[in-house]
Amino acid sequence: RQDMQFPDIWLRDNCRCKECYLPQTLSRLPQLWNNLDTSVRVLRQSVDVEQQVLYIEWSDGHASQYPYNWLRERDFSAANRQLYLSEFYRPEQKLWSGQNFEEVRRVFYFQELITCDSTLLQWLHHLAVYGVGLVKEAPLEMDVLRRLSNRVGFMRRTTYGEEFRVRAQPGASNYAYLAAPLPLHTDMPYFEYLPGVTMLHTLEQSASPGGVNLLADAFYVAELMRERHPDQFRALCQTPVDWADIGSDGGLQFHNIWRAPVINLDDEGRCVRINHSIPQRDSHFSVPMEQVRPWYEAMATFVGLAQEHSCRFKTTPGDVLTFDNLRLVHGRTGYDDTDRNV
Amino acid sequence: RQDMQFPDIWLRDNCRCKECYLPQTLSRLPQLWNNLDTSVRVLRQSVDVEQQVLYIEWSDGHASQYPYNWLRERDFSAANRQLYLSEFYRPEQKLWSGQNFEEVRRVFYFQELITCDSTLLQWLHHLAVYGVGLVKEAPLEMDVLRRLSNRVGFMRRTTYGEEFRVRAQPGASNYAYLAAPLPLHTDMPYFEYLPGVTMLHTLEQSASPGGVNLLADAFYVAELMRERHPDQFRALCQTPVDWADIGSDGGLQFHNIWRAPVINLDDEGRCVRINHSIPQRDSHFSVPMEQVRPWYEAMATFVGLAQEHSCRFKTTPGDVLTFDNLRLVHGRTGYDDTDRNV
Repeated sequence: RQDMQFPDIWLRDNCRCKECYLPQTLSRLPQLWNNLDTSVRVLRQSVDVEQQVLYIEWSDGHASQYPYNWLRERDFSAANRQLYLSEFYRPEQKLWSGQNFEEVRRVFYFQELITCDSTLLQWLHHLAVYGVGLVKEAPLEMDVLRRLSNRVGFMRRTTYGEEFRVRAQPGASNYAYLAAPLPLHTDMPYFEYLPGVTMLHTLEQSASPGGVNLLADAFYVAELMRERHPDQFRALCQTPVDWADIGSDGGLQFHNIWRAPVINLDDEGRCVRINHSIPQRDSHFSVPMEQVRPWYEAMATFVGLAQEHSCRFKTTPGDVLTFDNLRLVHGRTGYDDTDRNV
Repeated sequence: RQDMQFPDIWLRDNCRCKECYLPQTLSRLPQLWNNLDTSVRVLRQSVDVEQQVLYIEWSDGHASQYPYNWLRERDFSAANRQLYLSEFYRPEQKLWSGQNFEEVRRVFYFQELITCDSTLLQWLHHLAVYGVGLVKEAPLEMDVLRRLSNRVGFMRRTTYGEEFRVRAQPGASNYAYLAAPLPLHTDMPYFEYLPGVTMLHTLEQSASPGGVNLLADAFYVAELMRERHPDQFRALCQTPVDWADIGSDGGLQFHNIWRAPVINLDDEGRCVRINHSIPQRDSHFSVPMEQVRPWYEAMATFVGLAQEHSCRFKTTPGDVLTFDNLRLVHGRTGYDDTDRNV
């Protein structure tokens, strides 16, 4: 108990009494903040060892009590904060090359995901750590992705609706609707708000040799570039790119635009999002002339490394390929869906 | 024409011929990128003055032509890029204090927004520049916000659904459902993906003296802090805060968490998002002890300045208050909805 650490002002802000905390909403009441007294100090403190409670009397006349278990979870020691961030907030990502895909590849069964919470957690954990999970033996029905989503939260709508069917359409208004090869890309980089997880449910597979899935961990590729090509890595982190999707779908017209680099880092320099799609990169490129050639050279390296470190596999009907769309790039080889091949 | 600037590799990447560009999808074809040759150079170029077309023959054997008007829009000169970014991509924001709210306050009429595209554009432009717009004379019907949203795109779903009714509910599971005063806050800071625009449709107004809307431009407040309290500004930009919402609504259970500072800056140091809500700040605070007190002191300044620079007004039934939820903080005074007052 002695080794726990708490700032006094944090304790005052998180008092659990009825004046300060509303149990029904599990949240702090805002009264204290109408005129926050940051000079508040502990006058007296005591511990009830049997009840496992810490009592504090404050310089502003208030009195608080904190259960030991509640404090334990919120201990400011470096070890406990690290535990909270990695065990509760976000599991640590493990990056991979396509050459090691067999170690990363893990299969989950649809019926188990729907019925068993611990299997559901394993799938979500695997998605968080490796960015990919393959779901097998899903029914060949249209509501599979919705049922899977609703186990966790809800589907995120885009200008293409909540779900869309990718199949060869003559005269298609979106490149993904063509049977042509689809090189590695992230989905919808033209949205600030984009799908964090993409799910592809295979209802029919082409009997042609094509239609093979390609998948690469673009965070792995980015880290390779940071190490081997630091100038090109910086060019991809610092050159804003114009992303766009102009068209219509389901009766909705749109011209979606978003401007951001290919590699997006957080304040501590960690990769948090990749934007990459050759057809959905705008012909507008709003950067100074001298940044243009270095950016193209860096992209050539990025695209080459992503191909080199991608894996290939072919799904079968009933498979649901799920992956982190902020991190992975995906694609497919071309296929031939003439009547004979469907 | 002489003063336009284009990088050669960008021109090659944006060739408009049938091999390189698919008019039906308005997008680049990816073939060139299978093995991008960044050493490609212009061999010969010529201009057809009458047709207003630029012809280029490339070192890789390809030939391209570009209409003058298409080039003009994509000119890399600093002036043209600036024009594209401010006129097309994002209008420049104008920050305001509540003391100047009368200049910022602009009224739009629901029926005009639904029927007239230029009024719609004016509303969107005003929202982009000032972060707020007041819509008047909307019907007292439940589909008003949906009709307004569908004029632009679609509603964004959260764990509270696409729409939710704020009214006094005894035993409410969310603090906003209480009749108590609601201090200035942004909506849903516990989502990475949060509503960019919040719309509040007043169906009934409390006849009590309460229920007054409060609104402040938190980007203005942040800039004041950057100028007057640079250390506290940095503390609010650099201290990650744990945001949380634990509960259930409409049959969905959730524990939403997101970790980010109160003031979020882009790579160039501009404010892009404010997170602030006293009840929805988690009791977990995963930062080193020594950052805690400076953060509380900075927040006391922030909250005080936001109150000082807020404006107050009371909406009437049929009003729709629309505002930028990444930028503005909003709240309301308490109200008394006993039977007599509804």
